[in-house]
Amino acid sequence: MTEEKVELRRGLRDVYIDRTTSSFIDGKIGKLLYRGYNIDDLSEKSTFEETIYLLLYDKLPTQAELDEFDGELKANRHLPEEVLQVIELTKTAHPMDVLRTAVSVLATFEPEVNDNSQEATLRKGVKLTAQAPTIVATHARIREGKDPIAPDDTLGHAANFLYMLFGEKPLPEDARLIDKDFILHAEHGINASSFGARVAASTQADLHCAVTTGVAVLKGPSHGGAAEEVMKMALDIGEEARAEQYVKDLLAGGGRVMGFGHRVYRAVDPRSIHLKDDARELGERKGQPKWFSILASVTKAMEPYSRRGICQNVDFFSGAIYYLLDIPDDLFISIFAMGRIPGWTVQVMEQFKNNILLRPRLQYVGPMDVEYVPIDQR
Amino acid sequence: MTEEKVELRRGLRDVYIDRTTSSFIDGKIGKLLYRGYNIDDLSEKSTFEETIYLLLYDKLPTQAELDEFDGELKANRHLPEEVLQVIELTKTAHPMDVLRTAVSVLATFEPEVNDNSQEATLRKGVKLTAQAPTIVATHARIREGKDPIAPDDTLGHAANFLYMLFGEKPLPEDARLIDKDFILHAEHGINASSFGARVAASTQADLHCAVTTGVAVLKGPSHGGAAEEVMKMALDIGEEARAEQYVKDLLAGGGRVMGFGHRVYRAVDPRSIHLKDDARELGERKGQPKWFSILASVTKAMEPYSRRGICQNVDFFSGAIYYLLDIPDDLFISIFAMGRIPGWTVQVMEQFKNNILLRPRLQYVGPMDVEYVPIDQR
Repeated sequence: MTEEKVELRRGLRDVYIDRTTSSFIDGKIGKLLYRGYNIDDLSEKSTFEETIYLLLYDKLPTQAELDEFDGELKANRHLPEEVLQVIELTKTAHPMDVLRTAVSVLATFEPEVNDNSQEATLRKGVKLTAQAPTIVATHARIREGKDPIAPDDTLGHAANFLYMLFGEKPLPEDARLIDKDFILHAEHGINASSFGARVAASTQADLHCAVTTGVAVLKGPSHGGAAEEVMKMALDIGEEARAEQYVKDLLAGGGRVMGFGHRVYRAVDPRSIHLKDDARELGERKGQPKWFSILASVTKAMEPYSRRGICQNVDFFSGAIYYLLDIPDDLFISIFAMGRIPGWTVQVMEQFKNNILLRPRLQYVGPMDVEYVPIDQR
Repeated sequence: MTEEKVELRRGLRDVYIDRTTSSFIDGKIGKLLYRGYNIDDLSEKSTFEETIYLLLYDKLPTQAELDEFDGELKANRHLPEEVLQVIELTKTAHPMDVLRTAVSVLATFEPEVNDNSQEATLRKGVKLTAQAPTIVATHARIREGKDPIAPDDTLGHAANFLYMLFGEKPLPEDARLIDKDFILHAEHGINASSFGARVAASTQADLHCAVTTGVAVLKGPSHGGAAEEVMKMALDIGEEARAEQYVKDLLAGGGRVMGFGHRVYRAVDPRSIHLKDDARELGERKGQPKWFSILASVTKAMEPYSRRGICQNVDFFSGAIYYLLDIPDDLFISIFAMGRIPGWTVQVMEQFKNNILLRPRLQYVGPMDVEYVPIDQR
């Protein structure tokens, strides 16, 4: 045992590791700003393209700037042939495993891969943001034996994703739901995946290392996996009248309701409010209002917990939206990842700007100075 | 600006995030224990296979246990055909990019990929440890237009790596140097790459996510890249007599001597003492004593700094060993990674055992509540 008395900071709860100008979270009242702008405004008035311009360049673009930026995104949607081949070779894997691998492979074909300047990192972040939907949609089609669909330059980022996934141009209102979903997932401070990306950047590893790390960390069910689980729960509940008892039984059995609770928020996650409205409207429009009703009943049954700070989070209503848009459930986390790549990029740029190795300590509590016994005497 | 006064813990310097029984580091006197056993004993008396058994099972094996474990490692050296194809498709990338990609791809062919039990994680860690040298050697040959060499089950882990790399069985004394190097790199607490692996595990992401992260984080020049830089410096110095002036000029120009300094050690890194002896002996044996002499002169010139706690670290002499064994310089980090996979595995197993999401905070210092101006009014 060590002689040292140390204070353990398990989970790094409320340990501030640096300053940021990227996003502000007030967990007590449920407020989220990107670069000072409220996500309530951005999700209703902006587009994903404009929002990530704001995140990356720290200002809202003029129309000319946005057009140029949009052109850059569109120009980077195609994947190198080798990446398509790797997707084919790994098509049986989970979509997040395929995305992680494909991002890693893209380093091979990135001429600026080792350039950690602010400018090059931003450029590479834009490229990866543009490439990710093509990876996810291509994989989703290939594994079903369908031909991949080439990106369509007449469509925006979200609409083009749905087009590449389904092979037909989406309804504008459906595309707008995914656009808003991407906006709401774009950045969220130093969540675990962004933290992982910063740990990579802290060793001066490049953006492809950092984004590969981001995807790897996001795959964990405690981080990106809840949307899928929430929708599974809704399907399991099956009808609104059963929701309250289901929640009671689940909690009585020691289970937890997925899509509830967050390390930072003690109030309702402000992102979930927009997604809630979207899930309700979409359900009505598609003639399937029951999933929303079930989820709303779950939130009602959870009210005693919500009053104690365990509230619905970003994942609670997003799964219903994806489900109603016919997106396969194992793609839900990948949609989160597609939206978050700009946030990872911004976090990495901040880390590079004022870099320091992220290297904490562990307290050793094992035996000391054990004598090595030769193998024939064991 | 936020109203909160917070204490920043930049770099997480001396922040203890958890307990461990895996390794003990005393940075003040330069002491390193694996599971209580001094690396001075392990590096001289043990083998890599035995040492990683110790790390993974928390006890030294009997001969029968070691034989079984060795068989398990040998049985897992072959790569799925798809992984070989991915290495071919990405052969122009840096070896660490290829290793990161190949580990990520291996998730596709791992039946237990999502099983985060202690037993499955250990099994997968053993497999990845066995597979990594095949990945690195196969890539090194393919990119030079040579055929890959199949693993040889009559050879130990280190010897087989050199055999797959060069196509001929190595001298036992050369293999022993790589064996010791692997032992000395096997585990080192919560260094940045192990920390990254733990961040991944903290979201309940699986071992392949965590090890992909480990490789991604290790690629950074501040973590795994120094061995290559030290040897470049030695080549640049060229002769012993120039070393002192070279160091003076480098420091006067604001440069830093690679392979010196460590976040935890304020004394000589105990691993470097073994590698120093090895580098000297190997230089004499190969009739090229000058590289060691140059490096020894650099350490002499650095003595004023060493007295202030900036001492030679694990990377300082390892590059010379790899160089004298004719290993290409961009493979140096991959050797570090191959040795470290058991350490990442052990850290992930500890994280899973007593898991908590690793999620710190950032202090927001940007503008608040900025009004969203429509694009036509900007």
